[in-house]
Amino acid sequence: MSDRWRNWIIRGIFTCLMVTGFGIIIYGGPLALMVTTLVVQVKCFEEIINIGYTVYRIHGLPWFRSLSWYFLITSNYFFYGENLMDYFAVVINRTDYLRVLVTYHRFISFCLYIMGFVWFVLSLVKKYYMKQFSLFAWTHVALLIVVTQSYLIIQNIFEGLIWFIVPVSMIVINDIMAYVFGFFFGRTPLIKLSPKKTWEGFVGGGISTVILGLLMSYVICQYRYFVCPIEYSEALGRMTMDCEPSYLFRPQEYTLPTETLQNLSNWLGWKGTITMYPFLLHSLSMSVFSSVIGPFGGFFASGFKRAFKIKDFGDVIPGHGGIMDRFDCQYLMATFVNVYISSFIHTASPQKLLQQSDGILSQVYNLKPEQQLQLFYTLRDALEHRGILNTP
Amino acid sequence: MSDRWRNWIIRGIFTCLMVTGFGIIIYGGPLALMVTTLVVQVKCFEEIINIGYTVYRIHGLPWFRSLSWYFLITSNYFFYGENLMDYFAVVINRTDYLRVLVTYHRFISFCLYIMGFVWFVLSLVKKYYMKQFSLFAWTHVALLIVVTQSYLIIQNIFEGLIWFIVPVSMIVINDIMAYVFGFFFGRTPLIKLSPKKTWEGFVGGGISTVILGLLMSYVICQYRYFVCPIEYSEALGRMTMDCEPSYLFRPQEYTLPTETLQNLSNWLGWKGTITMYPFLLHSLSMSVFSSVIGPFGGFFASGFKRAFKIKDFGDVIPGHGGIMDRFDCQYLMATFVNVYISSFIHTASPQKLLQQSDGILSQVYNLKPEQQLQLFYTLRDALEHRGILNTP
Repeated sequence: MSDRWRNWIIRGIFTCLMVTGFGIIIYGGPLALMVTTLVVQVKCFEEIINIGYTVYRIHGLPWFRSLSWYFLITSNYFFYGENLMDYFAVVINRTDYLRVLVTYHRFISFCLYIMGFVWFVLSLVKKYYMKQFSLFAWTHVALLIVVTQSYLIIQNIFEGLIWFIVPVSMIVINDIMAYVFGFFFGRTPLIKLSPKKTWEGFVGGGISTVILGLLMSYVICQYRYFVCPIEYSEALGRMTMDCEPSYLFRPQEYTLPTETLQNLSNWLGWKGTITMYPFLLHSLSMSVFSSVIGPFGGFFASGFKRAFKIKDFGDVIPGHGGIMDRFDCQYLMATFVNVYISSFIHTASPQKLLQQSDGILSQVYNLKPEQQLQLFYTLRDALEHRGILNTP
Repeated sequence: MSDRWRNWIIRGIFTCLMVTGFGIIIYGGPLALMVTTLVVQVKCFEEIINIGYTVYRIHGLPWFRSLSWYFLITSNYFFYGENLMDYFAVVINRTDYLRVLVTYHRFISFCLYIMGFVWFVLSLVKKYYMKQFSLFAWTHVALLIVVTQSYLIIQNIFEGLIWFIVPVSMIVINDIMAYVFGFFFGRTPLIKLSPKKTWEGFVGGGISTVILGLLMSYVICQYRYFVCPIEYSEALGRMTMDCEPSYLFRPQEYTLPTETLQNLSNWLGWKGTITMYPFLLHSLSMSVFSSVIGPFGGFFASGFKRAFKIKDFGDVIPGHGGIMDRFDCQYLMATFVNVYISSFIHTASPQKLLQQSDGILSQVYNLKPEQQLQLFYTLRDALEHRGILNTP
């Protein structure tokens, strides 16, 4: 068997293994997913840092590796702190030393960072100045890419597993389908950066992503396990996904927007309306993003690899290269989903209004009883004063 | 007159001019300060980018400058949006097109960023790959330093002008006094990075900063103009600083912590207590930070200049160099103050509790009247249910 074929087979087998692994991790629940995100983050960081190390060909550089890892830990403490504090507020407030870590969380993070900064300045050695500064910048860019993204991914997971599974799968589907279409129909080169990519693969992959993405969303929409936001249940001592599904995941009747479409639907006996999960519309936006912009993450990564004359980011996954080679497009997607949720899900839905009130109320309940009472009276007076509340 | 002396005089004159200018801008009020911050930010960014341009010695690089400025505008839109939205909520909600810019602010920022990202990928040209990626990273690090800092500075200004004036002046005082002490008493070299800095300057500058910082804080504490948080007054159509000063800026009686100190104070006829503004304690922390850690910002900058073999960041200020040369230490300070406020001022003070309630209430008032009413009833029921509220 030729090397080329052997490589195809290995690549195929490991693709299947990874997809299966992904399924198992999802079955393992949110905690398993978060731990996986963390592990992937650490591996990606390691790969990026190792490339920096190779590019600048320095081995005696004092403290560089320790400093990089130190900054990784510091920034994780900062971002995870910001993230998890709200969700675990109840548990955290019971444990004294944890409370300190949380109350002064920003200050501690800053002090840790400043310590790293001072350490860097003190570690500067005359003949290495330029390399040290370059690698310092390199580390910070790596942190920016890796840590902030994994922070956003974890935020998405808390919104409900569906906000994690659907986008991640879309990128995977797009990768695979673009490859398949390119393999069978590929003729027109797409971009100079990646000579193997073709327009046929890009378009075919895109259309498949939209269709398969919608199908997948339709199925996943029906399980509370996937659609409910994750909450920490104090009674059970673990994270739970149980709720009355939000309106996004309950079938809604939509009137078709144009007359032509309405006539068409009447002719089909559909009464000019269509019933579907509102989430499918969001799924559509995500699939369009993942098939149009997603590939640019890949182009960026291949440009990067060419710039620094490396073949792959690593060699952890046989047939695929490093972890970064497989996750290059996921990074843009995670940010997109996060921004999308905060812009369209948290503001536009009718349910948002309720969630907003809930958010405010939970802040009130975090106050001391006497403050709650005082706030209540202040609110009552204000509402009376404004004529909103009329007490007899 | 020798060149060296001429330089001293020019430097001295421009130091005075800058200090005077600073005073005038403060007199101009918060808007003038924010505009200045923005201008300084843009100039610093320009200087950093120009150095990148020089270091990589490329002049035909496609789109690099436009891209950098594009990212600067995008990130400013993002950060200023996040910042100013809350303060100008009332005004913004009245203007329809502004409301769109605000409601979908994150999404728009993200789209703008993605456009820049795609533009970068499309602008990649084979023989420049490595330089283009290096400069892409360079631009991002510059953004990280410049834009996030000016965002934090503006946040500090909103907390009250004192949180801006005191720390900025401390760094200036520390710079000047370290120079003066070094000039007269400097013998022991401090750090290899900056051969001209001495331990005597470091220590003398530090002590002067603490003393002068406390004195200055004591004076500034007494003016509402400086201590009141900045609010946008709809009636006046401008930003105002008028309030009942928070307890930080009202003299408080403190019991001296140890018996020795109490005896000493009794002997002086002080009754074992000391009366002062609580802000002075915070001023102390800030002055310690600015004199111990502040100089490391300067060391970092001189290391950077050595690494890339440049003398100064620019030549805008005669005798001083570029704007970055004068603001290098301010950057760490701004972050410190911001974190300090969020960790110690917003949480630990007795007034905090009130502010917290105020924050919650202002969220309530942003809801629609019927939602406010509904929230009120939900809160009433919850408080009754918990036995906090007893209605007859």
